[in-house]
Amino acid sequence: MAIHVLHYLHDGRAQWGVVANNAITPIPGEFKTTAEFIHANPVERLLTLDGATLAEADVQWLSPVTANQQFICQGANYRQHMIESGMDPDAKKFNMIFTKATSCIVPADSRLVKPNSVRFLDYEIELGLVLKRDVTSRATITDENLHDYVAGAVIVNDYSARDVQIPQMQFYKGKSYRTFGPVGPYLCLLEKHDLPKLKDLVLTLTVNGTVRQNDSSSGLVYGPAETLTELSSVQDLHAGDLLATGTPSGCALIIPSPEKQRAAAQLPEAEKWRLFFALQAERAQYLQDGDVVEARIVSQDGSIDLGTQRNVVVAEAV
Amino acid sequence: MAIHVLHYLHDGRAQWGVVANNAITPIPGEFKTTAEFIHANPVERLLTLDGATLAEADVQWLSPVTANQQFICQGANYRQHMIESGMDPDAKKFNMIFTKATSCIVPADSRLVKPNSVRFLDYEIELGLVLKRDVTSRATITDENLHDYVAGAVIVNDYSARDVQIPQMQFYKGKSYRTFGPVGPYLCLLEKHDLPKLKDLVLTLTVNGTVRQNDSSSGLVYGPAETLTELSSVQDLHAGDLLATGTPSGCALIIPSPEKQRAAAQLPEAEKWRLFFALQAERAQYLQDGDVVEARIVSQDGSIDLGTQRNVVVAEAV
Repeated sequence: MAIHVLHYLHDGRAQWGVVANNAITPIPGEFKTTAEFIHANPVERLLTLDGATLAEADVQWLSPVTANQQFICQGANYRQHMIESGMDPDAKKFNMIFTKATSCIVPADSRLVKPNSVRFLDYEIELGLVLKRDVTSRATITDENLHDYVAGAVIVNDYSARDVQIPQMQFYKGKSYRTFGPVGPYLCLLEKHDLPKLKDLVLTLTVNGTVRQNDSSSGLVYGPAETLTELSSVQDLHAGDLLATGTPSGCALIIPSPEKQRAAAQLPEAEKWRLFFALQAERAQYLQDGDVVEARIVSQDGSIDLGTQRNVVVAEAV
Repeated sequence: MAIHVLHYLHDGRAQWGVVANNAITPIPGEFKTTAEFIHANPVERLLTLDGATLAEADVQWLSPVTANQQFICQGANYRQHMIESGMDPDAKKFNMIFTKATSCIVPADSRLVKPNSVRFLDYEIELGLVLKRDVTSRATITDENLHDYVAGAVIVNDYSARDVQIPQMQFYKGKSYRTFGPVGPYLCLLEKHDLPKLKDLVLTLTVNGTVRQNDSSSGLVYGPAETLTELSSVQDLHAGDLLATGTPSGCALIIPSPEKQRAAAQLPEAEKWRLFFALQAERAQYLQDGDVVEARIVSQDGSIDLGTQRNVVVAEAV
C-alpha cells in the first residue's frame, strides 16, 4: 500500500509522520536527512504505525528531500515539451541530465522569490523520484527490480529563469536560484505492486486557477528504470537523492521552430538573443509578482496523492 | 605564508598534515570533511605546528576535497580556450556555470577509467578554489575581502567525455563519470597577502611527457571575486566547496569555426553530429589506455606549489 509521509516542523522540532485524512501520525525517532529517514523506515514498518495524531493544519511543512541529497534532473523528457522546446523527439537520442543546487529546495508552500535580474520566470511541474538505496557501481535496473531502487514519489517544481538558462547554455544557474525547487508536500512511499502506477500519474499545474500544464506520466520518454541504469554507469547515487523526471508541455517558454532556429543560427549572437527575448516578451504566461502557482500529482485511482504545492510569486527584497 | 596541506591515509586512518620538503607534519584531530578541516584549522594555527614527521612516500594520497562538498565549475573561462571552443570571447557576456557529480572526485594519483562507451576522452587542467566559509545570501566579494571567502587552491582535472558532453548539450553527464575529477594533491591554504598570486599561477599539463596545456591564471576571464559574488546571488555556498575555474587552451577537443557551425546548423541533427565526430576522430590528442597525464600548478615565485597530479588511463573493467 502507498504510504504518504510528511516532513514537518512542530513545537520547533523537525519530525516525520504518516498523513491520512488531514491527520498526521508522528513517526518515532529523529531523522536529520532523507537518507536517514528512508534507511530507518521501510513501508512495512509504517503500515503498522499507530498513536496519537496531529492536525495537519497545526504543523509547518518541510521539504521531504533534505539539502544534503543530490538534486538530479532530466531535461526535455516529454514528447510534446520537446517539440515546444524546439527539439525533434525522434532525433534526440539521449537522456539529458543536469542538476539544480540543493539550496533551491524549499517546502511545497514556500513563496517563490523572483530575482530582480530575472525577466522570464517559468514553472515546470515534475514527478520526482526519491531513491531507496546507495548505488556505487553499474546496476541493471528494470521494472521488475525498480522497487529496490525507488523509495517513493514527490512533486517537484523546477522553476526556471529562462533568460539565464537558455542563453547561458548550461541550465544549472538559471534553475538554481533560492526557492526555485519546491519539493513535496508528501513523499509517497511505494511498495513493489504500487510502482506500475508511476506510469499513470496525472500532473496538473495552474497559475491563478487557470490550467497551464496537464499531462500523464505515461508520456515520459526515458523512464525511471532506464534512467537510473544509465546514471549508475556514470556516478554514485544515494538513498534519499532526488531525480526530477522532466516536465510536460505548457510552460511559458516558447522556442522558435527548427526552421526559424536554423535561420537564427546565421545571425550574430547578440541579434539572435534579441529576437529570442522579443519572442518571450510576447508571452503573458511568464510569472509575475502576486501570481499563485499550484501543482498537483495524483494517480488515476486516487491511491497516490502527492498533495498540492502552492507558491506565491514575490519580488526579491532589495 | 602559504601552507601546503595533504589529506592522506596512513595506518588505515584518514588524516591531514602540513607538507614541506617531502615530509608531513600530522595535524592533530579528526576532520571527516573539508568543511570540518577548514573550520578547525586557520592558517595561523598551522604556522606554529610542530611534532614528528612522516615521509610523504609512506602515505596514500586522498583528495583534499571530500565528496560531501559541492563541485561547481566554470566553463569557457580562458580567452584562447573560448576561441577553440567556437565562442567569441567578446560576444560571450556570461559566466558559464555547471556541476560535476562529486562521486567523480579521486586522489591526484588515481587511475583515470575510460568508460567503454566513451570514444573521445579529454583532459582539462584547472585551478580549483576551496571556499573558507558558508555564504547563504548575496555577498559583495572583491579582491580586498576575497581572503574571507577563499581558503586555498588545488589542482583539478576536469576530465570530459566529449562525445557525451557536447552532443547532449548539458555538460554534467559527460564530465561526471567516476574518476573524472582528480583533486590535489595539495590544498595550499592562503593568507590575505598570498591571494594576488592566484592571478599569476602557471598551469602545465603533459600527456606522455609532451606539453599540451601551458598557460597563466592571469588569462581567466571571470575572476574568483566576481564569480563568487554572482554565485552568492543564486545559491548557497559552504566552507570546503570546490570552484573549478575553467581550463586554458590545448585540449584535444576541436570545434568547427563559427562559420562552419553556421553552415552545420542547416544540416539535419544526425548529419551535423556525424561531421562533428569525424572531425574529432582526426585528433590524435584524445586519451587512450596507457596514456599518462601529468598536471602541475605553481606560482612564478615558487611559494605556491600545488604538487603534481599523475593519472594513468585504463580501460573500464567489464
